[in-house]
Amino acid sequence: MGTSLDLTQDVGALTARIVDIESVSGNEKALADAVEEALRALPHLRVDRDGESVVARTGLGRGERVVIAGHIDTVPVAGNLPSRVEGDLLYGCGASDMKSGVAVALRLAAALPEPNRDVTYVFYDCEEIEAERNGLRRLSRSHPDWLAGDFAVLMEPTDGLIEGGCQGTLRAQVVTRGERAHSARSWLGSNAIHAAGPVLDLLNAYEARKPVVDGLEFHEGLNAVGITGGIAGNVIPDECVVTVNYRFAPDLSLEQAQEHVREVFGGFEVRFTDGAPAARPGLNHPVAAAFVTAVGGVPRAKLGWTDVSLFSALGVPAVNFGPGDPNLAHQRGEFASLSKIAECERHMLAWLS
Amino acid sequence: MGTSLDLTQDVGALTARIVDIESVSGNEKALADAVEEALRALPHLRVDRDGESVVARTGLGRGERVVIAGHIDTVPVAGNLPSRVEGDLLYGCGASDMKSGVAVALRLAAALPEPNRDVTYVFYDCEEIEAERNGLRRLSRSHPDWLAGDFAVLMEPTDGLIEGGCQGTLRAQVVTRGERAHSARSWLGSNAIHAAGPVLDLLNAYEARKPVVDGLEFHEGLNAVGITGGIAGNVIPDECVVTVNYRFAPDLSLEQAQEHVREVFGGFEVRFTDGAPAARPGLNHPVAAAFVTAVGGVPRAKLGWTDVSLFSALGVPAVNFGPGDPNLAHQRGEFASLSKIAECERHMLAWLS
Repeated sequence: MGTSLDLTQDVGALTARIVDIESVSGNEKALADAVEEALRALPHLRVDRDGESVVARTGLGRGERVVIAGHIDTVPVAGNLPSRVEGDLLYGCGASDMKSGVAVALRLAAALPEPNRDVTYVFYDCEEIEAERNGLRRLSRSHPDWLAGDFAVLMEPTDGLIEGGCQGTLRAQVVTRGERAHSARSWLGSNAIHAAGPVLDLLNAYEARKPVVDGLEFHEGLNAVGITGGIAGNVIPDECVVTVNYRFAPDLSLEQAQEHVREVFGGFEVRFTDGAPAARPGLNHPVAAAFVTAVGGVPRAKLGWTDVSLFSALGVPAVNFGPGDPNLAHQRGEFASLSKIAECERHMLAWLS
Repeated sequence: MGTSLDLTQDVGALTARIVDIESVSGNEKALADAVEEALRALPHLRVDRDGESVVARTGLGRGERVVIAGHIDTVPVAGNLPSRVEGDLLYGCGASDMKSGVAVALRLAAALPEPNRDVTYVFYDCEEIEAERNGLRRLSRSHPDWLAGDFAVLMEPTDGLIEGGCQGTLRAQVVTRGERAHSARSWLGSNAIHAAGPVLDLLNAYEARKPVVDGLEFHEGLNAVGITGGIAGNVIPDECVVTVNYRFAPDLSLEQAQEHVREVFGGFEVRFTDGAPAARPGLNHPVAAAFVTAVGGVPRAKLGWTDVSLFSALGVPAVNFGPGDPNLAHQRGEFASLSKIAECERHMLAWLS
C-alpha cells in the first residue's frame, strides 16, 4: 500500500487514511509527501513546500483571503495504530489532534476549485514538540507571504466550537535576597524566604482581569508555579526564587504584559525567563463574522496558548475551530466522532461556497 | 614511636602529642587505647570503657561530683598533621576542637589525686558525625550511671569563656495544599504556593523571645530554612512545604517547643522532622557558682546546640568551657593558643583544688 491520498473519499474515510500514515513529530515526511502529491493534482492550487510543511493557495483575485491551517504531526504512537472504527467513533493516534481537521482542510481544497474567498491551506510539521522546531513558526519567518490573509482558522480540536484568539503567557522569576547566617544566631543574617512573604501576599491580593477583546471575554491569571529557597537545615537562606506565570489577554502585547508584572512586583528583582504573545480573536472583521454565522454557536475565548498567536503576530486574526475533542488530545484512547467531522466539513463548505 | 601518653608533660606538649595521634571520627581506637592506658596507670581512678569511649572516676565520697567531658574525634584531616608550633600557636587538626580541652582534662586527672569534689572524666568518640553514632549519647543510654554528677563541664572550644547550657533545636515542615489545574485556567485549581503566603507572614511577624534562664539571656529564633513547591511551569501547584527551624531556650522542653510551633502555625499542617532538647545552664547550683568564681569572666548563654544537652537530659546541668577558639573549628588552619590552654588548666585546677 502506497501513501497516496484520495481526496474524493468521504471525510471520515480520509481521516482514517491519514491517521494510518504515522507522522510522529520529526517523522512527517511520508504524510507531507502524500499531502503535497494530492494537492499538486489540483490545478486550481499553487503548491509550495518548505521542509515537511506544505502550503497550497487559490489565486482567484477575491477581495478576501482566508487561511486554513493544521499540523500534520502527532504525539508518539501508543499502541493506538492502525485506526479502527466503532460505531460513530474513529480511534487512532491523532484522530482528534488533529488529523480530522487536516482531512477537512484537504477535502475543502479538493472540493472548492472556486471558493467565495481566496483560501490558503497550510499543513505544517512539528507542532507537538519544542517551539523552536514548530513548522508554522518556521514558515512565519521564512515565508510570511505564504501565510498572508484576512483571517485564519486553525483546525485544532475544539469540539466544533469557535475559540477566538488565545491568551499570551510569560514566566518570570521574582527573586528575594538575604544574608546567610547560622540559624542558631539568625539575627546575624537576613532571611530571603521570609522576604518572599510580601511576594506571595501580592499574588494573593492580585485581582485577575477579565477583559472583553473583540467581543470575547478572556480571563487572565497571575500565579506562582514554583518556589525554591534554602541551603541547609541550619542556615538562614540568602536567596528565594518565586517563579510566576502570567496568562494575559490579547489586549496586551508581550512587552506590556512584562511591564505589568514589573509593576505588580515593584521593588523586587524580576527576571523574565520565557514568553509568548497573545492573539486577538478578530471576530469583528467581516470575514470572521461570516465565519461565525456559517458555523453557528457562541464563540468563546481561547484561554490556553496556541499557534493562532503566530498568525496574530503576522497581523492575521485567527480562531481555533476543529472537529476533534480537546479533552482527548494526547491520550492513548484518542478518538474522533465521524458525524462531527462531517458536520465540521459542512460548516466550512457553507462558509466558503 | 608508640602511642603512650605522658600526663606529666606540660599541657601544651600533651596537646601536641594528642593532636598527632590521628583520630578522625570512627577511627579513634589508637587514641582511646592511649587514653585508657594512661588513666589506668593512675591508682586514684576507676576506669571504664565502652567502645572507643573511656570514663575515669574518683571515688572519694565527696559531697559533690562534677563531670569533665570531651570528644576525642576530629573532622577529617586536611593536610594539617603533624602538628607544628609557631610562637604561642599550636597548629593541627583538632588543636582547637577539641584536643586542647582533652589535654587539660587528662592533666587534671593525673594532677588531682584528691580533688575537692569527686570528678568523672569522660572521653568519647564520634561527636563530629551523625548523632546516632555519638559516643556520649551511647553512654547516656548504656551507662547513665557513669555520667552522674551535680554539674558538667564540656570542654568544647569557647575561647576560655563559660557558655551555659544550650538552646534546643527542632525542624518542622509547614505544609499547604491546593488543587492542581492548568495555569491557563488557574481558577479551576487552588494554588498551594499562594497559600504559603500567610505562613511567611507569620514568620515575618514572629517576635523571638530572649528569656533569662538561670541568670543567662538566651535568644530564640524561628526561621524558614527551606521552601519548595511547584510541578511544572504551566501547572497550579497542589503542595508547598515550608521547612522551619526553631531554636528554643532551655526554659522549654522539646515537647513544649513543638507545642509552641503548632500554636504559631495554628490551622496549618505541621510535621516535625527532627529535634533535640535544650539544656539549662544550671549556674545557680553551688558547684557551678564556685566554677564561675574560679574561672572568672561573665558567663553567656550557648546559643548553638551542643552535647551539654545530653547531660541536661540526665539531670546534670552543664556548661561549655574550653581553651579552643570556636571560630577556628573545622578549618584547615585550625590552631590553639598554648597560653590559653595553660590558663584554662590553671582555672580548672583552682576550681578543683
